[in-house]
Amino acid sequence: MAAHRVVVVGAGFGGLAVARGLARAPGIEVLVVDRTNYHLFQPLLYQVATAGLEPADIAYPARGIARRLRTARFRSAEVLGVDWDARTLRVAHGAPIPFDSLVLATGAATATFGVPGAAEHAFGLKRLDDAVALRSHLLRQFEMADADPRLIDQGALTVVVVGGGPTGTEMAGALTELFRNVLARDFPRLDIARSRVVLVEMAPEVLNGFHPSLRASARRELVRKGVELALGRSVAEVDADGVRLDDGRELPARTVLWAAGVRAVAPETGLPLARAGRIAVDPDLAVPGHPGVWAIGDVAGAVDGDGTPLPQLAPVAIQGGTHVARQILRRRAGLAGEPFTYVDRGTMATIGRRAAVAQLPLGIRLTGTLAWLAWLGLHLVQLIGFRNRLSVLLNWAWNYLTWDRAARIIVDVEDPRPEPGIGDRARSEASGP
Amino acid sequence: MAAHRVVVVGAGFGGLAVARGLARAPGIEVLVVDRTNYHLFQPLLYQVATAGLEPADIAYPARGIARRLRTARFRSAEVLGVDWDARTLRVAHGAPIPFDSLVLATGAATATFGVPGAAEHAFGLKRLDDAVALRSHLLRQFEMADADPRLIDQGALTVVVVGGGPTGTEMAGALTELFRNVLARDFPRLDIARSRVVLVEMAPEVLNGFHPSLRASARRELVRKGVELALGRSVAEVDADGVRLDDGRELPARTVLWAAGVRAVAPETGLPLARAGRIAVDPDLAVPGHPGVWAIGDVAGAVDGDGTPLPQLAPVAIQGGTHVARQILRRRAGLAGEPFTYVDRGTMATIGRRAAVAQLPLGIRLTGTLAWLAWLGLHLVQLIGFRNRLSVLLNWAWNYLTWDRAARIIVDVEDPRPEPGIGDRARSEASGP
Repeated sequence: MAAHRVVVVGAGFGGLAVARGLARAPGIEVLVVDRTNYHLFQPLLYQVATAGLEPADIAYPARGIARRLRTARFRSAEVLGVDWDARTLRVAHGAPIPFDSLVLATGAATATFGVPGAAEHAFGLKRLDDAVALRSHLLRQFEMADADPRLIDQGALTVVVVGGGPTGTEMAGALTELFRNVLARDFPRLDIARSRVVLVEMAPEVLNGFHPSLRASARRELVRKGVELALGRSVAEVDADGVRLDDGRELPARTVLWAAGVRAVAPETGLPLARAGRIAVDPDLAVPGHPGVWAIGDVAGAVDGDGTPLPQLAPVAIQGGTHVARQILRRRAGLAGEPFTYVDRGTMATIGRRAAVAQLPLGIRLTGTLAWLAWLGLHLVQLIGFRNRLSVLLNWAWNYLTWDRAARIIVDVEDPRPEPGIGDRARSEASGP
Repeated sequence: MAAHRVVVVGAGFGGLAVARGLARAPGIEVLVVDRTNYHLFQPLLYQVATAGLEPADIAYPARGIARRLRTARFRSAEVLGVDWDARTLRVAHGAPIPFDSLVLATGAATATFGVPGAAEHAFGLKRLDDAVALRSHLLRQFEMADADPRLIDQGALTVVVVGGGPTGTEMAGALTELFRNVLARDFPRLDIARSRVVLVEMAPEVLNGFHPSLRASARRELVRKGVELALGRSVAEVDADGVRLDDGRELPARTVLWAAGVRAVAPETGLPLARAGRIAVDPDLAVPGHPGVWAIGDVAGAVDGDGTPLPQLAPVAIQGGTHVARQILRRRAGLAGEPFTYVDRGTMATIGRRAAVAQLPLGIRLTGTLAWLAWLGLHLVQLIGFRNRLSVLLNWAWNYLTWDRAARIIVDVEDPRPEPGIGDRARSEASGP
């Protein structure tokens, strides 16, 4: 009998959890398909953007992962759509990929919700090339301001971070540290006191979803680090010169980071969508009307017991992937499906050196150095591969002890996009080399 | 009295040697200008191209170097030309840069000598983005061949390396190791035995300039590693499908690396040029007719006692830089100039794991493991910065012990150049962000 062929679209946290859950399962073969050839450890993407880590530290070759899971293979391909009758995936190059079971784990991309100019002028931070482009862009602004300090008035040293969730908060903290601790020494003739990091958040506090005491702690840390907060404010418009807030205030800024939302990204499936482009799923994460098809993680419109959409976080994707792997095995064993229940084991966000907030089970809340150490440890063990853990640990130790950032190099010297925006890159976020 | 202002164009080996030679010299201030914002350790560029090292391992932030040399500053700028009357440099952005002394150390770029199609279809390997583009391109060929093995017939797994000097030899050896040791495990369904690395060299042996016994040893090592040698042959034409040799033989190849020559790269100076675009210099490396102007390294047309042009190698640039720094100090002290004498302390080339050749003074010649260890040690100590040395050492140890390459990630997923060539990028090789 031919093996049951499970195709997983997406090599993120969710997709890999499916592959792991099915490793060594007899009679099953898993093919993981992704647009890129690596698993991206997105939680540390902001450290690549701020020159603290190198791309290869947080991007693990997907084939290296598949190799170690006996039943799994990997293929780098851009998935264009699904042919439901033939049960195949249409891909940009090569023959259609047949599947017996299909798991959609394609994640999410930056969403600008139609804010004028945001898609054209703001940077996103969901992909590895986003981070590398942002790093080069930021360093280039400092070089240009050094050559012509009048550019500072035009916002060359100003970054507006839109969105006070974990990504926005972590970026804002990391940016002030990069500017004040590292670039201040690199650019002795620049008045670094004139650099600005402005964090715009619609809610009255940053880190929505955290306990009020942690939100207040995070806010105080950000202010202490020199981040300017525009709380209770939103961005009305972005253009090449900066942003205009909803209260009419204009902020000249050469760099705008959009961390205020994501939308699900899926190939053309014709499937009914829930909110924000997420694929509607049954309580067991199965796609209704398509036996053997599942959706997990950011792309899945899963809800909790109250009908509230589950958050678009790595742990939801990982638990969903593990759940779906189990359901595939149960179905093959003739057992009934089980509903998916997300267990919240806590969330964390770091603001900078020895500054973080952590919200753990049993009402445990940490701030400051303790939360920061917990954050460091958790992220280190979650990284894939001993070599990447060692490299990240060494880079962190080096950065911490020397206040240096080795990766502050401008690599895309011939980037043809002088002002890269999200809009022109969000077209094919699903998969393909 | 205002400080004597020395402007050095180029942050390569030569330019940095000038800055080091003038560090702590009273009454002198040094400005190093470069197109990029880093010093590139070119001898290890081929390891970035073959996924053994990360870009930040061999690119050291130039401002970090300048910071440690008390009298030096750095500026990232594209130098367009020189205004000799005003004694200023024209730059792409910002005000002209005035100088009292000027050192041209702009190096060399890939030269294809008019071979049809080479500039359009071949990769060079002189810049960091060359290496990253080549790495992504190579990995993408394997992904594509995995999806459609018919592409192997079209040369998807074939690399033609043109030029059997150190760069070509090192690349050829590193490529077969990458294919056979690393990618063979990543792509279990691909017939890696069908991958080919062909090294084309006009001379009857590789490594021109090395002792005949070392050249023979290098050839044997290459063959043992599976490199196909086309010695005594040259490339007549390159196109999108591969190369045609001068004997009419066609090699289908999706990847062609041009390592068969360089040409000097200089801003528009109007200065008389020697061979291959190199700036004519006096025996003391001064540019004739322009007091206080010097040229060093690959861009300088310096000759030895016999009138033979000096080789375009890092040690020549370093010694030239040290020499010019000394001459600048001597002139200020009213002392006469000294002629530049290049002292050849030996050359090395590595072919792969425990395989290298080294030609040292006193007729000492090493091959095999000993030469390889000497090569590793020499390159480690020459790298700038403890962190980069540590990172390279760890990567080497990891790669050696695990036969793994952590950096085998395709990062330029949206590289708009499907078949990047040298031609469209060789326009402004001089300097500028």
